[in-house]
Amino acid sequence: MDKTTQSTESICESQPKWSWIQGGIAAPQGFRAAGVKAGVKYPNKYDVALVYSEAPAQAAGVFTRNKVKAHPLLLTKKHLENGVAQAMVANSGNANACVGKPGDEAAWAMAVKTAEVLGIAAEDVLVASTGVIGAELPVERVTKGIGAASLEISKKISPEEALQNSHQAALAIMTTDTVVKEAACELLTENGKVRLGAMAKGSGMIHPNMGTMLGFITTDATIPAPDLQELLSEAVEESFNMVTVDGDTSTNDMVLVLANGKSGITLNSGEWAEFRRMFLAVCKKLAQDIARDGEGATKFLEVQAFGAATVEDARKIAKSICGSSLVKTALYGEDANWGRILAAAGYSGAEFDPDQVEIYLGHVLVAKEGQGVNFSEEEAKEVLIKKDVTIKLLLQEGQAQATAWGCDLTHDYVTINGDYRT
Amino acid sequence: MDKTTQSTESICESQPKWSWIQGGIAAPQGFRAAGVKAGVKYPNKYDVALVYSEAPAQAAGVFTRNKVKAHPLLLTKKHLENGVAQAMVANSGNANACVGKPGDEAAWAMAVKTAEVLGIAAEDVLVASTGVIGAELPVERVTKGIGAASLEISKKISPEEALQNSHQAALAIMTTDTVVKEAACELLTENGKVRLGAMAKGSGMIHPNMGTMLGFITTDATIPAPDLQELLSEAVEESFNMVTVDGDTSTNDMVLVLANGKSGITLNSGEWAEFRRMFLAVCKKLAQDIARDGEGATKFLEVQAFGAATVEDARKIAKSICGSSLVKTALYGEDANWGRILAAAGYSGAEFDPDQVEIYLGHVLVAKEGQGVNFSEEEAKEVLIKKDVTIKLLLQEGQAQATAWGCDLTHDYVTINGDYRT
Repeated sequence: MDKTTQSTESICESQPKWSWIQGGIAAPQGFRAAGVKAGVKYPNKYDVALVYSEAPAQAAGVFTRNKVKAHPLLLTKKHLENGVAQAMVANSGNANACVGKPGDEAAWAMAVKTAEVLGIAAEDVLVASTGVIGAELPVERVTKGIGAASLEISKKISPEEALQNSHQAALAIMTTDTVVKEAACELLTENGKVRLGAMAKGSGMIHPNMGTMLGFITTDATIPAPDLQELLSEAVEESFNMVTVDGDTSTNDMVLVLANGKSGITLNSGEWAEFRRMFLAVCKKLAQDIARDGEGATKFLEVQAFGAATVEDARKIAKSICGSSLVKTALYGEDANWGRILAAAGYSGAEFDPDQVEIYLGHVLVAKEGQGVNFSEEEAKEVLIKKDVTIKLLLQEGQAQATAWGCDLTHDYVTINGDYRT
Repeated sequence: MDKTTQSTESICESQPKWSWIQGGIAAPQGFRAAGVKAGVKYPNKYDVALVYSEAPAQAAGVFTRNKVKAHPLLLTKKHLENGVAQAMVANSGNANACVGKPGDEAAWAMAVKTAEVLGIAAEDVLVASTGVIGAELPVERVTKGIGAASLEISKKISPEEALQNSHQAALAIMTTDTVVKEAACELLTENGKVRLGAMAKGSGMIHPNMGTMLGFITTDATIPAPDLQELLSEAVEESFNMVTVDGDTSTNDMVLVLANGKSGITLNSGEWAEFRRMFLAVCKKLAQDIARDGEGATKFLEVQAFGAATVEDARKIAKSICGSSLVKTALYGEDANWGRILAAAGYSGAEFDPDQVEIYLGHVLVAKEGQGVNFSEEEAKEVLIKKDVTIKLLLQEGQAQATAWGCDLTHDYVTINGDYRT
């Protein structure tokens, strides 16, 4: 594979040759998925997801930076060491975190059961869990669920049923999510089509410090594991790591990607650039889906920081504004409180001159040279009553830019999290 | 003055010879205070506070680390350069921040007016403001208020009236505060009494990154400005900087201290140690008052981190737990969700081994060796239904410890901040 030296940012400037298609995690050739109700979450909810690749796939992952790491995460990291995997299994309703040895055993049992029913090696199974921390995983229910899911996967099914199975897998990784998050797309190469499939979950305990949620991505392109790892790590920086819902970094976050080469296509230099763009677009879409589905959220917030001295500064500022409780509550209250926006930029740790900053709510200039301008409250209100709100900062320090996504802080966030465990 | 080499921590181990007394900011000799209703905040609320020292006082201050700094803050920093001041003036209802040149002029006008009515130099006036950012200060109302306050101060009044005046000054710096925050105490030395007086405000936009609120402290002890600055900076680290309400660092935070020497007493080595302890106790009390009065709070949270490798690690962990939206909502919901506590420690940035951690809710051990123990949910509930809740972590990494204070995250926090400006 011949990689370009273009950054993902600059790639995004050119015209795409890829397109969104129907489907989810099993859209690429040679992948199958299923979701079942195993009784982990609560009765009659999908809670065990299985993704299977017909051939051993090149694999890569990124993981939470939290010091406290869930048991399946540790196992999955180990299983990724050789860059090869053939299945991903996940449960919701229980994080399998902070329960000691039984937790390690439960994660291993999930891998063993998956291997057994699919006829592959346990070391080629990647395991993920999400849900409440500190409660022992009901292993028998989960392994029974894995058995049921493997039956679904081995059935001869129609394309419609395949779509439904993917969808159920995406349902099975949800916790407080209210919306299914999946995506699929396709790139035309000179030798035919390659596809990407993806699903994610995330609603609370979301903060830009790695992983930030569960994400699963598949492709039938031929990509060696090191390239896959680099692709994923880069894309995560600009997508999942730019989302914040509540500033809490989870113990379980991970994003995994499998490339099984079933399309038979190795991308040339130009195609690889296109593929990277497509990959980043999928990651950004899922990241935005997560922000939009933030616990209790009524509004989606995009913060764009332009003209920073460095990308790092631009990211700090965009994330700090997205994460500010006071900005988030003002958004909820549809209040054009730009002072809180500037204050959040001010404590972000980024270098900039506050007296140079311009702030826009949507298209409305609300502050200039670090102070308020005489804007129309009515025009600002028109921006703020919408479900999607964009805040833009022009820093006049340099050329770097970054975008972060978040949501408002609402009464429902408090209600949801005031009574999650019990 | 002969300073001991004891740390403030170790000083706190010995028996105090000082005591709390009635009163507030004007409790020390030679200080007078007043609060008036100047029409800045809203009709019939106290909003301009004036504190006057009969003699020029040694002065020190600490200030917000936010890049965006309010206009009065910049002026006050300048006026502190020579370590001398004679008056402190503050208004609530308007932060006088981010309004450009008129903001600098307004802060200067407050200093000039104060100097004029008190017959002192404008350079000896320290100015503070708190309230909404980005709106121009109604200077005429404020200066008229300063005139009215100076009349109060020049009156011959009874001790009861003096107490009331102090109280009104403390009222006049409140914004969304629901409780007046003031304190006074007294130390018996071999040459007589020295006193401390203090008042503070803070409820939202509170986060441990310097100042974090407005605080004013007075003493009639004789203390040179450099010692006063060191005393203040040290005490702030362990008190105001260990409070978080919502993670938002304000543009206006400052803590000021004046020492006018009116007691005629210079402290000897042992007395200085006692005085430092008293000073720290006052700062901690006001810091806790602020956490307890957090916007919308129904519960007060104290987090103690013991056995950290370094004080810095202990502080990071304690603050991170106090600041976690998920811990705060669980506290509101009276949910013994120790997993969120451990997760917040995990992303604090501190070094520790999660598998060694013990967590207590009040006296109830809920997790050990990084995993849950079989605790009585009933006993935990008894701890959590109280208004004051303590979380304790034993890290088994070393000897360092730290304590942080915060509050729960409630529906009312969202209501208050969803509609503050308009």
